[in-house]
Amino acid sequence: MSHNTFGHLFRVTTWGESHGPALGCVVDGCPPGLALTAEEVQVWLDQRRPGQGKFVTQRQEPDAVKILSGVFEDERTGGQVTTGTPISMMIENVDQRSRDYGEIATQFRPGHADYTYFAKYGVRDYRGGGRASARETASRVAAGAVARKILGGVTIRAAVVQIGPHAIDRNRLDWDQRTENAFWCPDAQMVPVWEEHLEQVRKAGSSTGAIVEVEAVGVPAGWGAPIYGKLDAELAAALMSINASKGVEIGAGFASAAFSGEENADEMRMGNDGPMFLSNSAGGILGGISSGQPVVARVAFKPTSSILTLRRSLNEAGEEIDLRTKGRHDPCVGLRAVPVVEAMTACVLADAYLRHRGQTGGGAFVPGGQGRV
Amino acid sequence: MSHNTFGHLFRVTTWGESHGPALGCVVDGCPPGLALTAEEVQVWLDQRRPGQGKFVTQRQEPDAVKILSGVFEDERTGGQVTTGTPISMMIENVDQRSRDYGEIATQFRPGHADYTYFAKYGVRDYRGGGRASARETASRVAAGAVARKILGGVTIRAAVVQIGPHAIDRNRLDWDQRTENAFWCPDAQMVPVWEEHLEQVRKAGSSTGAIVEVEAVGVPAGWGAPIYGKLDAELAAALMSINASKGVEIGAGFASAAFSGEENADEMRMGNDGPMFLSNSAGGILGGISSGQPVVARVAFKPTSSILTLRRSLNEAGEEIDLRTKGRHDPCVGLRAVPVVEAMTACVLADAYLRHRGQTGGGAFVPGGQGRV
Amino acid sequence: MSHNTFGHLFRVTTWGESHGPALGCVVDGCPPGLALTAEEVQVWLDQRRPGQGKFVTQRQEPDAVKILSGVFEDERTGGQVTTGTPISMMIENVDQRSRDYGEIATQFRPGHADYTYFAKYGVRDYRGGGRASARETASRVAAGAVARKILGGVTIRAAVVQIGPHAIDRNRLDWDQRTENAFWCPDAQMVPVWEEHLEQVRKAGSSTGAIVEVEAVGVPAGWGAPIYGKLDAELAAALMSINASKGVEIGAGFASAAFSGEENADEMRMGNDGPMFLSNSAGGILGGISSGQPVVARVAFKPTSSILTLRRSLNEAGEEIDLRTKGRHDPCVGLRAVPVVEAMTACVLADAYLRHRGQTGGGAFVPGGQGRV
Amino acid sequence: MSHNTFGHLFRVTTWGESHGPALGCVVDGCPPGLALTAEEVQVWLDQRRPGQGKFVTQRQEPDAVKILSGVFEDERTGGQVTTGTPISMMIENVDQRSRDYGEIATQFRPGHADYTYFAKYGVRDYRGGGRASARETASRVAAGAVARKILGGVTIRAAVVQIGPHAIDRNRLDWDQRTENAFWCPDAQMVPVWEEHLEQVRKAGSSTGAIVEVEAVGVPAGWGAPIYGKLDAELAAALMSINASKGVEIGAGFASAAFSGEENADEMRMGNDGPMFLSNSAGGILGGISSGQPVVARVAFKPTSSILTLRRSLNEAGEEIDLRTKGRHDPCVGLRAVPVVEAMTACVLADAYLRHRGQTGGGAFVPGGQGRV
Repeated sequence: MSHNTFGHLFRVTTWGESHGPALGCVVDGCPPGLALTAEEVQVWLDQRRPGQGKFVTQRQEPDAVKILSGVFEDERTGGQVTTGTPISMMIENVDQRSRDYGEIATQFRPGHADYTYFAKYGVRDYRGGGRASARETASRVAAGAVARKILGGVTIRAAVVQIGPHAIDRNRLDWDQRTENAFWCPDAQMVPVWEEHLEQVRKAGSSTGAIVEVEAVGVPAGWGAPIYGKLDAELAAALMSINASKGVEIGAGFASAAFSGEENADEMRMGNDGPMFLSNSAGGILGGISSGQPVVARVAFKPTSSILTLRRSLNEAGEEIDLRTKGRHDPCVGLRAVPVVEAMTACVLADAYLRHRGQTGGGAFVPGGQGRV
Repeated sequence: MSHNTFGHLFRVTTWGESHGPALGCVVDGCPPGLALTAEEVQVWLDQRRPGQGKFVTQRQEPDAVKILSGVFEDERTGGQVTTGTPISMMIENVDQRSRDYGEIATQFRPGHADYTYFAKYGVRDYRGGGRASARETASRVAAGAVARKILGGVTIRAAVVQIGPHAIDRNRLDWDQRTENAFWCPDAQMVPVWEEHLEQVRKAGSSTGAIVEVEAVGVPAGWGAPIYGKLDAELAAALMSINASKGVEIGAGFASAAFSGEENADEMRMGNDGPMFLSNSAGGILGGISSGQPVVARVAFKPTSSILTLRRSLNEAGEEIDLRTKGRHDPCVGLRAVPVVEAMTACVLADAYLRHRGQTGGGAFVPGGQGRV
Repeated sequence: MSHNTFGHLFRVTTWGESHGPALGCVVDGCPPGLALTAEEVQVWLDQRRPGQGKFVTQRQEPDAVKILSGVFEDERTGGQVTTGTPISMMIENVDQRSRDYGEIATQFRPGHADYTYFAKYGVRDYRGGGRASARETASRVAAGAVARKILGGVTIRAAVVQIGPHAIDRNRLDWDQRTENAFWCPDAQMVPVWEEHLEQVRKAGSSTGAIVEVEAVGVPAGWGAPIYGKLDAELAAALMSINASKGVEIGAGFASAAFSGEENADEMRMGNDGPMFLSNSAGGILGGISSGQPVVARVAFKPTSSILTLRRSLNEAGEEIDLRTKGRHDPCVGLRAVPVVEAMTACVLADAYLRHRGQTGGGAFVPGGQGRV
Repeated sequence: MSHNTFGHLFRVTTWGESHGPALGCVVDGCPPGLALTAEEVQVWLDQRRPGQGKFVTQRQEPDAVKILSGVFEDERTGGQVTTGTPISMMIENVDQRSRDYGEIATQFRPGHADYTYFAKYGVRDYRGGGRASARETASRVAAGAVARKILGGVTIRAAVVQIGPHAIDRNRLDWDQRTENAFWCPDAQMVPVWEEHLEQVRKAGSSTGAIVEVEAVGVPAGWGAPIYGKLDAELAAALMSINASKGVEIGAGFASAAFSGEENADEMRMGNDGPMFLSNSAGGILGGISSGQPVVARVAFKPTSSILTLRRSLNEAGEEIDLRTKGRHDPCVGLRAVPVVEAMTACVLADAYLRHRGQTGGGAFVPGGQGRV
């Protein structure tokens, strides 16, 4: 992870500002021969797209992705496949409303990156947050679509598990529910509570935070490269790099601080399909290497910083000002982060898989087995 | 961060197993001309050293560091300084008790990396956890000592803020207290509570988790390189890579999920020394760039996995076994993580500083100012 | 350098195939506040553009570059400047002639990358050489235009010093001449010789090799990062990565193998502007660090592999075939490499400069001086 | 390649100065399960060791290597194998003669890195060249020994093909001869010529340059990662990073500049073991990817800069001086570079192999075949 590139063998570089002509990514190191079309990438982008409900920004962006390189017709199947060369994907900005930005151009909106970009660079594209806009995450989702192609049998799914102070009841958690409502909520009984909470927040011109949980099922044992390329360390970086993210935990996470040793260490037994664990406090990662259990992470998102309440701040001239942030904003940025959390998880796993295959040839040793399989 | 190296311009590579002849690190990219002696590094290592109390492992390791390269006498001052070439530091293992490991050599201790190292590599140094041992963190502390030299005016300090279910009262938080007790506890009234809790845990042959908080005061605005080299993303990776770490949060962290927009976004005013914030929910980082406020992070550590309770597991032959983990273990690994959390924070900040200086020439724009200062 | 990205702090990622919809690059890590417009980049691209003479390919490509991100109006000057975020540049392919590729789709042209791409990836975009086409170098030239902005006082200029067996007379070398002819030739008397040679080659349906020399004047002492990031090592990699490059030498290069120690080591004296060397066998680099003298490198280019002569080869079915390569090809690919060699040199130097500034703060110690200036 | 680390998946970090207590390397990313002992590494180090003849430095260094980490007994075979964790190797400096360096401490020896290290860093370990000493290459040879373990069926061998103006006759080239004389000379008739030349050089207190050729036989098609991770680009960087290297060429190299297209492009036919080439101008690399032919490179080494002739130079005070460089120096540094060239080639190939396996799963498509084998 460095500047605008992340990954080692599966490497993603993103570019683009909120109100520039376009944004996109270059995905490098993808294995050749994987079927890939723009339509397949679009499916995931459509999940992230704004303008799809009362509680998300009303900016209308089709987010239509074009694949500019790295794919070609496969003479054997006739379909379009990856060629192993860099896959450049571009999304043109359509609804970037040319308007007079007026004072906002020189004001620092509290909670935004306005001030820090000014301090670091001296110049910044202030339109819609520029590079710091959540629009950048569209590029991540496009890259994640490619990563999923590599991961084949791995299922990656995320859900919102808390909005504001309202956390789901984990006894009612049902992954199938999350696509049945506008909130990626896996607990059907929580839906009306969140709906009311968001309605209040919206009316108050305020915003609210959220927690997103992601799990990857089907990750075999052996992925991850200790010590500093630990799978959980790379997940932490990837998920913390998402806009508005303020915390990442793996498995039992912060709750494990209150655990006893007995509650913490997952016991093992031999299952029908090989080694199995009797619990998953570890979140599928031990010593930075996947254990074969589902990889589980949670990400905390702060409330959207753009609110209508009058707030104290400064401008570039160093003057004290009071400002309210108008515009088309999600009251709960965590809602739209769900596909992004999935995408970043997919990218990290795809990269870990390729590196594992590079160093070891792939596969894993199984207890009682006869070597790597 | 990748395999056993982390950092971009300030880069640390560590090596060594718990019971091998030695362990160490190579610190590359350090600026030249910084005064540095082994004695100065030793000060920090002594803080991490085991065998110093009832609640830490009784393994006796002097952890005496040698600097093998990268320093030389400065003709001007007569003192020893860094030369800009790689600084190799080595710590010999002394108390690695040559003994018969017997069954442990082929058994997977629950909660340890035994199974995942076996699955990934097929062969592992099972003595004392091998590469996955917390002894590796001595190398990080040595590297952190060098990083602190680069950071000059930045103060980095960590404390334990929770052990098991017992969190400190933040109203009583006093950084000066943390060196007055055996628990890095900044809340004097919490000390006896933790002492009793740890005594119970120790008697029960169990263990307990903890949360460590770190703050870096004096970091100027402008450090960090969005999007994927965000300062918080790099901190997250660095802190999550520490043994037993299960979660990282920045500023208000997971609590911010329950915040309203008004509670979240830190307001700004002009202070005597330039821009100031009226709160620090952001933990000193906005858009991945430091804001000039203290950088604040918290790390959750799971309980030590080595406990005396009989636990269900497997061995390399795939047989189901019941085992208890004897040996010299910390009941609360979070206690000894404090200097490690500080060291990793120092390394991340030093690297961010050098990269900021590389891209921009250093310094920052100040509101109302006349360019970069 | 790795896959499709090169550089450390100044980092360039390129993408695109010869006959895809477009190609381009993402330039990351550029300092903020540098004036940059598409028109300025276009100047350099126009130098590389095909279709400009009898001895270069007749493919007509305007190579019009668009800057899609990373620049913004500077409120102070009103001009467009870099913002420090990734600069995405795109060149649409216009003259990619949709035609039936027929057998060429499954044949391996001798001397091309056709066979090795097939062997490695199993699938390849065979149209116009796909990713292996020299069209990719347009992206390098665009990136080089940005690098030059960083380098300010450094002048980078390249010339062709040999075509086929005909080397220039170095006593007649006049840098001003190189833009006075179609061959980037700095020796006016050599121009007619090359013209006749190329005419013969063209009529024979053959091709010819060339040597390009580049020098960078004004590089101060101190750039480059030994041991493995040596300035000459990075130049070697950058220049060897150019299509058809088969050799790179620095300063006296291969000739120095026949030197005596006295001929080799450049002596020093104090000049009016500080230390000076009495010769430049070293090519401006000692121990991997710039010495303040001009940095000098030469690159050998093999003849274009596409020739009309019937050649023995294979196809994807493993059948032996005889083929001649028709199409629009440069008889001497070295001619069009001149702007590319300059661009790669600029990128390497810009990266070295930023890293030097990152590690040391910039500047250099001067003999007899009082510290870093 | 960056600072003191090179490689991507197979990654080598070296450290140490000529006259410090020790030097060494950390080899990261090595596959697990490879048999490896210090004795096996020592074999290669002994080839590089100084003090073994009249024409190499008389410094007596046993160069005894210790493996400090990353290996462990294999329970299956009882032998010592790599574990997949970093392999730290150390060589203690024994004969570093503690003496008064006097004026040399502040003088710049012409042709050395003395001046550039001073300019860049302001402080330098002047004893024996410090970090810029050829002693650093011992670490490379140790790393190369590990790389060879990964490469199994690949044979890597280098020879000296020119000393001073005396090049071998390629018609007499016999690889078996190179170990039959003190000069790694594969042309028996050239041995007495070189012997006389070196004797003259030695008596004159001068030095001489050389060219080393390396070939790797048995590299399958498909290794290398275009565009900027081309196998030849990585070789060029690795070989140019060796002390005193001034040029690198692949296959026909600079000679190809004088070729016609017919002479250049290697034709193909179907051989008994699959595709074969009828010549090898390409040096086994096309488009940056190995073709299955022997990979061939040549490296030019300048004469040792340390000579007894009085030379003009400067000192740190900026004063003009005349100096002669006494000490124990090789008159022809190219002679001792042979094992280093082999080692760097091995490291580059091992890294390319692992990355190829990572991206594609390994193997290659064969014309007429049924997919990747």
